[in-house]
Amino acid sequence: MPGFLSNLLRVLSEGRGGDMRFLCHQLLSERGEASQTVLAEKIIKTYGAMSPAKRRAFFDMLTREFSPDAAAIKRAVAQYEKNPELASIAALSAAVEAPRQELFRRINTAPHGTETLVALRGDLHTLTPEDGEFSALDSDLKHLMRSWFNRGFLRLERISWKTSAIVLEKLIQYESVHEINGWPDLRRRLDADRRCFAFFHPALTDEPIIFVEVALANGLTGTLEPLLDIQAPVLAPEKADTAIFYSINNCLRGLRGVAFGNFLIKQVVTELSAEFPNLKTYGTLSPLPRLSRAMRDNENPEGFTRERLARLLTDFAAQLTGTSRRRDAVDALFHLLENPVEHREALAAPLERLALAYLARARDKGKLYDPVALFHLANGARLEQVNAFGNLRRYGIEASFGMTANYRYLPDELEENHERFVRDGQIRVSPHLHREFRKVEEAWDGERSPSSGRAKR
Amino acid sequence: MPGFLSNLLRVLSEGRGGDMRFLCHQLLSERGEASQTVLAEKIIKTYGAMSPAKRRAFFDMLTREFSPDAAAIKRAVAQYEKNPELASIAALSAAVEAPRQELFRRINTAPHGTETLVALRGDLHTLTPEDGEFSALDSDLKHLMRSWFNRGFLRLERISWKTSAIVLEKLIQYESVHEINGWPDLRRRLDADRRCFAFFHPALTDEPIIFVEVALANGLTGTLEPLLDIQAPVLAPEKADTAIFYSINNCLRGLRGVAFGNFLIKQVVTELSAEFPNLKTYGTLSPLPRLSRAMRDNENPEGFTRERLARLLTDFAAQLTGTSRRRDAVDALFHLLENPVEHREALAAPLERLALAYLARARDKGKLYDPVALFHLANGARLEQVNAFGNLRRYGIEASFGMTANYRYLPDELEENHERFVRDGQIRVSPHLHREFRKVEEAWDGERSPSSGRAKR
Amino acid sequence: MPGFLSNLLRVLSEGRGGDMRFLCHQLLSERGEASQTVLAEKIIKTYGAMSPAKRRAFFDMLTREFSPDAAAIKRAVAQYEKNPELASIAALSAAVEAPRQELFRRINTAPHGTETLVALRGDLHTLTPEDGEFSALDSDLKHLMRSWFNRGFLRLERISWKTSAIVLEKLIQYESVHEINGWPDLRRRLDADRRCFAFFHPALTDEPIIFVEVALANGLTGTLEPLLDIQAPVLAPEKADTAIFYSINNCLRGLRGVAFGNFLIKQVVTELSAEFPNLKTYGTLSPLPRLSRAMRDNENPEGFTRERLARLLTDFAAQLTGTSRRRDAVDALFHLLENPVEHREALAAPLERLALAYLARARDKGKLYDPVALFHLANGARLEQVNAFGNLRRYGIEASFGMTANYRYLPDELEENHERFVRDGQIRVSPHLHREFRKVEEAWDGERSPSSGRAKR
Amino acid sequence: MPGFLSNLLRVLSEGRGGDMRFLCHQLLSERGEASQTVLAEKIIKTYGAMSPAKRRAFFDMLTREFSPDAAAIKRAVAQYEKNPELASIAALSAAVEAPRQELFRRINTAPHGTETLVALRGDLHTLTPEDGEFSALDSDLKHLMRSWFNRGFLRLERISWKTSAIVLEKLIQYESVHEINGWPDLRRRLDADRRCFAFFHPALTDEPIIFVEVALANGLTGTLEPLLDIQAPVLAPEKADTAIFYSINNCLRGLRGVAFGNFLIKQVVTELSAEFPNLKTYGTLSPLPRLSRAMRDNENPEGFTRERLARLLTDFAAQLTGTSRRRDAVDALFHLLENPVEHREALAAPLERLALAYLARARDKGKLYDPVALFHLANGARLEQVNAFGNLRRYGIEASFGMTANYRYLPDELEENHERFVRDGQIRVSPHLHREFRKVEEAWDGERSPSSGRAKR
Repeated sequence: MPGFLSNLLRVLSEGRGGDMRFLCHQLLSERGEASQTVLAEKIIKTYGAMSPAKRRAFFDMLTREFSPDAAAIKRAVAQYEKNPELASIAALSAAVEAPRQELFRRINTAPHGTETLVALRGDLHTLTPEDGEFSALDSDLKHLMRSWFNRGFLRLERISWKTSAIVLEKLIQYESVHEINGWPDLRRRLDADRRCFAFFHPALTDEPIIFVEVALANGLTGTLEPLLDIQAPVLAPEKADTAIFYSINNCLRGLRGVAFGNFLIKQVVTELSAEFPNLKTYGTLSPLPRLSRAMRDNENPEGFTRERLARLLTDFAAQLTGTSRRRDAVDALFHLLENPVEHREALAAPLERLALAYLARARDKGKLYDPVALFHLANGARLEQVNAFGNLRRYGIEASFGMTANYRYLPDELEENHERFVRDGQIRVSPHLHREFRKVEEAWDGERSPSSGRAKR
Repeated sequence: MPGFLSNLLRVLSEGRGGDMRFLCHQLLSERGEASQTVLAEKIIKTYGAMSPAKRRAFFDMLTREFSPDAAAIKRAVAQYEKNPELASIAALSAAVEAPRQELFRRINTAPHGTETLVALRGDLHTLTPEDGEFSALDSDLKHLMRSWFNRGFLRLERISWKTSAIVLEKLIQYESVHEINGWPDLRRRLDADRRCFAFFHPALTDEPIIFVEVALANGLTGTLEPLLDIQAPVLAPEKADTAIFYSINNCLRGLRGVAFGNFLIKQVVTELSAEFPNLKTYGTLSPLPRLSRAMRDNENPEGFTRERLARLLTDFAAQLTGTSRRRDAVDALFHLLENPVEHREALAAPLERLALAYLARARDKGKLYDPVALFHLANGARLEQVNAFGNLRRYGIEASFGMTANYRYLPDELEENHERFVRDGQIRVSPHLHREFRKVEEAWDGERSPSSGRAKR
Repeated sequence: MPGFLSNLLRVLSEGRGGDMRFLCHQLLSERGEASQTVLAEKIIKTYGAMSPAKRRAFFDMLTREFSPDAAAIKRAVAQYEKNPELASIAALSAAVEAPRQELFRRINTAPHGTETLVALRGDLHTLTPEDGEFSALDSDLKHLMRSWFNRGFLRLERISWKTSAIVLEKLIQYESVHEINGWPDLRRRLDADRRCFAFFHPALTDEPIIFVEVALANGLTGTLEPLLDIQAPVLAPEKADTAIFYSINNCLRGLRGVAFGNFLIKQVVTELSAEFPNLKTYGTLSPLPRLSRAMRDNENPEGFTRERLARLLTDFAAQLTGTSRRRDAVDALFHLLENPVEHREALAAPLERLALAYLARARDKGKLYDPVALFHLANGARLEQVNAFGNLRRYGIEASFGMTANYRYLPDELEENHERFVRDGQIRVSPHLHREFRKVEEAWDGERSPSSGRAKR
Repeated sequence: MPGFLSNLLRVLSEGRGGDMRFLCHQLLSERGEASQTVLAEKIIKTYGAMSPAKRRAFFDMLTREFSPDAAAIKRAVAQYEKNPELASIAALSAAVEAPRQELFRRINTAPHGTETLVALRGDLHTLTPEDGEFSALDSDLKHLMRSWFNRGFLRLERISWKTSAIVLEKLIQYESVHEINGWPDLRRRLDADRRCFAFFHPALTDEPIIFVEVALANGLTGTLEPLLDIQAPVLAPEKADTAIFYSINNCLRGLRGVAFGNFLIKQVVTELSAEFPNLKTYGTLSPLPRLSRAMRDNENPEGFTRERLARLLTDFAAQLTGTSRRRDAVDALFHLLENPVEHREALAAPLERLALAYLARARDKGKLYDPVALFHLANGARLEQVNAFGNLRRYGIEASFGMTANYRYLPDELEENHERFVRDGQIRVSPHLHREFRKVEEAWDGERSPSSGRAKR
């Protein structure tokens, strides 16, 4: 008898080879232990070759057959109630863990295991509705990802023109904030007055997890074009006083909800301050990706109701309507916004007020409407500036009528800002935004609000 | 106000800085999130400076204050019983997870985090009794280690004379099977007819996790000395037909129970067979670390009771007693074993039979008595040979009267052997041991055992 | 007194700093020895900033002031004649070496020294006429380059999509045989069925010296387009039986005459045969860069005189003239060649004969007319095939009416072919070219030539 | 016909293979060009296997058969005299170059070529008398080494406990100033308050060319023991104010006369000052390797004649003789020096004066007697201090009665010191040695010397 292994391989290479159900159960069995790597490799290869439809079926199988066993939970609960001791907690803990977690851990022992499981979770998000029947499966995967992609295992690397083309190519592919138009564009973004850093994970070769693009400049700007212009003259980087984080990208859909951005920004600030002692200011040039949508979403009680819009626009009625009839400023606004670039003069000030309101007060189901603001404010940054017509590229006009925002990272403030934001929802703005911010708060709340928001300091 | 961070740091550098209770609670709090790295670094540094007594107190604190909350479990259980749905399972799962798991995950985000947590678990094993009050803490740590030290994250590296001294020094330090007597000894073990491989983890720089030493030789030998002799002539490695794994060492006490040996051996077999196509045999030269102890442990009903000893020695009574009175072979044996080397001729055959009995039948609380046998047999290897006086070094005589064993890895058998061993406790032995093995079984069981053990094939 | 060094630096940073004459004399002086690196760095920087006109003036200065001293040679010659001993030879050797050689050696001790001297020789070739007044300067530089760029110091590296962009960019820049049209074109040339190798020198970071592009294919082809087509399907490389060297580029003008191509091809053959045991044929797809020029150069007695052309075209007169009047085949040919692609049918056979004549017999001042043929034949390759309309790209039509050639590297023949070619000018052609080659020889020599050329075997 | 190459190889593997004469002539021939690498490899292998006697015979053959051709030189001289133009100089240059230079260049194209040629020159120095019949051969090799080992091709690397054991082992082997007693000694020399740097050449893998050991300390010490003591406490390196270069070793005998020490020291000063801004003083703790020999070499008119000794000892007569009879101080000195350590008190001051005289005035055939002084003074260092009984190790007592010296590198002085030393033989000493130095000069010269030496400043 030539051994079980070859038997198994023969079986695999025949009909049942593609039978993921069989393979997964094998991998979790005792026999599987001895052939763990072979089985895991087979699963990895099979998954890679599956059609989207088969992948959905596979998720379904994982949900049906590798979820916690209700009877076992019942027994463990009963035991715990009878005897609420350590051993009972351990048993309960074991009973509520879905067997697929161990399955995934075993798949992860083979080459390309991590890569495949990240891709699998990416597929789950792409192919199936959120919060649907697969949310428990997703939650198990996320739990593992959070453990495997612990920041302690990530390696910060500078990306430069000396980096491998296979990695640079992925920057072009993954950049979703400000599209990279081919290699000459990329090359300019990696020139002497630019920096790019990424986190890498040891199990994912040549694969950035998240990256940030930084411009070294004089002063924090609200205007995007000089940063993206391929022909822009190159500044001697040691003369810069400001580092502008103008694009941050999570690369892998399968790691959604496993946060690294916070760590990345802080470590990049550390790296840059060591390399360039002249840097005084660390800030972002950020998009407001949902501003247009928010302004049109007038039914949302936490958002831009028409009453709020009207109150916010009171001061600008004349310049918007262009008449002495100052009514209907809201309609006038939307009319002008059909061609915003043509009405830059009239729109600039109103848009800045609306953007401030949007960033600081508008919410969607209880959460801040703007995900970028949510990210930076939760990191402890402060809102430094809003800029009308800072981004005149098509996607900038479409998403936010060309508005941009700057968030500023002041090391001394980060912790306090973070805590107030997370605990009380208070938002720190820069001193020169205080007056404007108070107006926004009053208009938003429909009354003189004595102490709301965070206008002090 | 210079910001909370500096406040915090001031506080830390004053009295409460060393207060690990305060630091740990902070790290789990919301505020902690923004200063996670700073706090984690402080915890790491403080732990490093603690005395053993303080470390025990710290384990105690982790057990008292960061265990699952009984009330919360109670609520989750109640909810589950009312409504046994996904959300309830998730809530139950959250309630039974000790908060210290998240604490450890956050510590792990800082430099030297992994290193510190591995050391912490090592301390736990060194400083506190096993299975005592800290077993839940240990179990939490083990759970995390199993996740973080997934085989997919380990990197196999060849260790050679080209390796960094900082790593080589650790081999000397960690080698516990056959002590390395300084650098010339090490150098011989890394010469052309030797191979050494280790697993490394990306978060532990210059730190081998587990390593194996291999001799390339002609034929599998049971005698240790030629392998360890510094002056032994160097064989041209491409002429070898056998790879002898003569020492396998787990390096970090904190990773106890997180198994890599299985993967290591199999991958090393793969590496070696690629480099040396002439290799035909892959086997070990292994110690029997508890043989002496087992033979003296006559009260253990699963072990060497005096009756069993007497039956096992029946065939050798004459040569042991040296008289025609063949009674008291057991006493005679123990008498000779006081100076085993002086009675090599009389002892060789009896010791080989006893060793076989020890490896294959003796158990301690239900588990195989010999941990090395347990490891290789569970990997699917077969017991190839036992060798009297294969190890004449002092520690070899003390632990096992000089016995050594060979286990052999035959790729085609691994899976079947593993499964039979794990499922039924059956042990595969090499064909030329069959006869002897049957005798051992009969003597052990005190009767003709028609089919026990695994003497077929 | 703050020391001479700072004095020197002050002087340098003032007026005389840019005075290369002063700097070079300093560097060769005793004082210079202590400040060698500072001075060399200053020279390197100054040279880098010079205009072309200043560089020419600098070459002039190097020629006037750093050439061998006639009086010293005279003395050394006199001494040698009086006493022709070892010491006299050494003195003579010292006297005839231009002092600039030591100057260059000292420049080469500073960072970027090698780079600068290679660039300097490149400028010499670009800015001044060949074989002119600077030929001795050029010869000194070439002597040093030959020593510094000894093959033993070069490192072969595979260039792939994993290579740094800074290196890949240079391939695009240096490729002069078949232009690389941007990054997607480059990417295809580095795909799984292509290989690219380059030599690097340790003193020139990120700078390939010479590189070769290879296509793995089935059979040696004479047609370029499938090799260059970005959309061409990717062949599984292990299935290829032929490696086609389709582009070899020397990167640095300053290394002209310092040959590496020979070594590169042979080492790449070695690398490829180790990676792909299935490869049976190693050959080139090469241009005939001077064919058009040679055919129009009718006054060259070693080349295509009209008589020779007429004799070579005898067999094709009908198909070229298209009439029964078979006179004037030469004029007809040139007429058709005004639009070669339109007359492919009529031109193919005549062009192949002419190409064969051109490659094997046409000479220019005693040397083979075609530099590519000269290179491969001197390496010991044989002429395998000539192909009409193998290169339809504009530059192919212009340089050679679309002709391509294949040279084949047969390891067993290399040495003999090389020796016969170098010693006797004999050219090895493949068996199926023998007949045609004999016709070419007869036509070229104007008579039945009994044994000329290399038509045997 | 299986090709010439295989023919050649067959011949080589038979009788004539070991015939180096044949191989060398082949390698220089035209045929050799095509098989250059094969032939060079064969020569390298054959040389490696030669006995010392065969190597001497090989040097002889290289001298007889590969020297410049007298007839060719004669022709070139004649041509030059007839027509002293560029071409004639080039021809002369070619004629005086020994053909073995090209032979060596070709050997250097194969793997291990450089290594072999360096070893060959080392053998030349070991096996044959200096300045003998092989001096021209040696000179050719030195010329090539100077070119190949240009400082621009060397790479400075820090050697630490993280360095490969194969390199560290070589430090132990090559350290000849202060022997390294095994790995624990080496480890201490690489600890946090020590630095070690070496130059490496790209063609010599894992082979340091020259290395320097540095102690970071507080103040420049004259006493060796604390620097070499394995048990010495480790200083926090950032607190050191002084870098003491206490051992500099050229590793390869074959590179004798090809100087790197100068560059090494200066670059290490640069590295250290970047890493440790607190360092104020850079100096050496150096041996006086020929002091004992010089003091006994009383016949040397440039050295310690008895008259000079007597004059130098005038001030110490009483303490040396221990009587009121102050005659015979010289004999008394030599008597005490038979057990110098027992007479430390009496000997200290006289030895310091003698050491000063030795370092600054004693010469051997016109060159400074002490090679270490020659090296540092020519580098531009100043003599900072001489220390009685600074080195009590056996070799220190034997070579120099325990004396040590400090040389100090003051960046601002280097160039001026170097120039004065090289041009005029003037030696710079530290201010507190001025008075003593004047006494030495007067005693040495036997009169009040008004301005000799360098006692000013």
